[in-house]
Amino acid sequence: MHDGLAGLVAALDIGGTKIAGALVDGRGRLLLRAQRPTPAHADGATVMGAVAQVLDELRRSADWSRVRAAGIGSAGPVDASTGTVSPVNVPGWRGFPLVAEVTRRIGGLPVVLVGDGVAMTAAEHWRGAARGRANALCMVVSTGVGGGLVLGGRLHTGPTGNAGHIGHISVDLDGDPCACGGRGCVERIASGPHIARRARESGWRPGPDGDASAAGVAVAARAGDPLALASFARAARALAAGIAATATLVEIEVAVIGGGVAGAGDILFAPLREQLREYATLSFTAGIEVVPARLGGDAGLVGAAAAAAEALGLWGTAAS
Amino acid sequence: MHDGLAGLVAALDIGGTKIAGALVDGRGRLLLRAQRPTPAHADGATVMGAVAQVLDELRRSADWSRVRAAGIGSAGPVDASTGTVSPVNVPGWRGFPLVAEVTRRIGGLPVVLVGDGVAMTAAEHWRGAARGRANALCMVVSTGVGGGLVLGGRLHTGPTGNAGHIGHISVDLDGDPCACGGRGCVERIASGPHIARRARESGWRPGPDGDASAAGVAVAARAGDPLALASFARAARALAAGIAATATLVEIEVAVIGGGVAGAGDILFAPLREQLREYATLSFTAGIEVVPARLGGDAGLVGAAAAAAEALGLWGTAAS
Repeated sequence: MHDGLAGLVAALDIGGTKIAGALVDGRGRLLLRAQRPTPAHADGATVMGAVAQVLDELRRSADWSRVRAAGIGSAGPVDASTGTVSPVNVPGWRGFPLVAEVTRRIGGLPVVLVGDGVAMTAAEHWRGAARGRANALCMVVSTGVGGGLVLGGRLHTGPTGNAGHIGHISVDLDGDPCACGGRGCVERIASGPHIARRARESGWRPGPDGDASAAGVAVAARAGDPLALASFARAARALAAGIAATATLVEIEVAVIGGGVAGAGDILFAPLREQLREYATLSFTAGIEVVPARLGGDAGLVGAAAAAAEALGLWGTAAS
Repeated sequence: MHDGLAGLVAALDIGGTKIAGALVDGRGRLLLRAQRPTPAHADGATVMGAVAQVLDELRRSADWSRVRAAGIGSAGPVDASTGTVSPVNVPGWRGFPLVAEVTRRIGGLPVVLVGDGVAMTAAEHWRGAARGRANALCMVVSTGVGGGLVLGGRLHTGPTGNAGHIGHISVDLDGDPCACGGRGCVERIASGPHIARRARESGWRPGPDGDASAAGVAVAARAGDPLALASFARAARALAAGIAATATLVEIEVAVIGGGVAGAGDILFAPLREQLREYATLSFTAGIEVVPARLGGDAGLVGAAAAAAEALGLWGTAAS
């Protein structure tokens, strides 16, 4: 399997709005991209048809002969143990055999499936803010809250490829019901839509541009609006409790945070670092760093490739 | 290092009330025991003197020549990366170089240090309720709440030997201050003393035997006392949220629970299993089993030996 850096990985990043693909080389560069909108409300075969179009576009490349494997990062839940996916926002896919379908279309090359939070983590560990870190939590705070873990220098996928799902740990056991069926989940408090909802419920109103989203709340917070600041502070508190819980359970040295809400910068990071001192109190958790993610929209593709390379031993150690 | 099952490990289990030692063989049997009370309020050298007496007693055995290593499970916090311990209840030891002191007294044999929760986990994985499980959380619910993790078939100690500290993750971010400095920790809600305190604060009073401890509350709960049942239900809810958080973060298939509070049996386990369904809602967490620990008071010694054997590759794979 190992052929130095010459081999390529065909990466797929499958979400509720788009299906992206790329050929990725051993330095994390995207040699060729392809993309289709996700026909999210179509039947399963139609959604797979869009994936097949992306793969066909990649396969027409002269570089295809160098492809050694495919890596898939998919919206969850996924089940790497059975090779199936059931993305919440793609109802046509429930237990859909994505690994078998992709394997068939790429001539039997090995295929590695992970959740999108795990893929983003693989990317940040390989080429981003978690590079060189042996124990890290990487998170996306956006419409939802996802994540993944690096433990002992390696990506920790868990048996089903879902490990690191920090958005759905409860930090408020009597809190509001979450869409997942639980209560008081990190996502229920800290996601962009919930930051915006909480601000509006407390009386905050959008400015002249009418932006009622978390980005609009961040603009108001930066201008000193106390209701906007309070909503971000609450999100920061939930994130801090979740990061501290992770550090207490598995020992991490750094938490990397990306996604649209992280774009608020110090409006989020300053209270988060302050709150983390309140929750991460044990000696072995007290020094955790919190840093912004470095890879942007390509993290899903780079990470899908990195996860496959690490699992299959391509490119030496993908994590180095 | 590997010499089949013939080698022995000198195990130490260091707590706030006693310092126990044993020679442990490759089948988990304790060939010889030694024990001293912990002079918990004495200076560091005096505490080490008690450890040295335990070691001396073990060294006088004819079996000592077969000892290949020492394993230490200690009350935390520990720091395996520096070989030091700072047990909360032993103020004379702060950053105490226990590994160096033990190494010196056993002729330079290798010494492995882990926290007591990790040791208990190693024991349950090797010989107890987590045997054969690739991904498990083991917990002690007693005066405190401790734990450890098995991930991918191996003990997950973390760099400092403290991983799996489930007692100090916050499941109630606005909750009561915990002794650790955090808020709403699992231990603050589910430990024996807090089960008893909560029952008393709600109006529960001990029976004719005057037992105001969690054991007394359990007796009342078994007789149907609603206040006693409510206090156990609250503990079960916090444990469920913590176990669900662990499953969501790292993927586990089983949670093993030991310690005095687990002795309440169905008074604890029935509401715990019920509550777990409320918090472990994602597909990959929905099937977690909750089972009682199988090893009793010797888990610390057996586990200290198992942790050392696994780290050093003694006895083939200690975990098999």
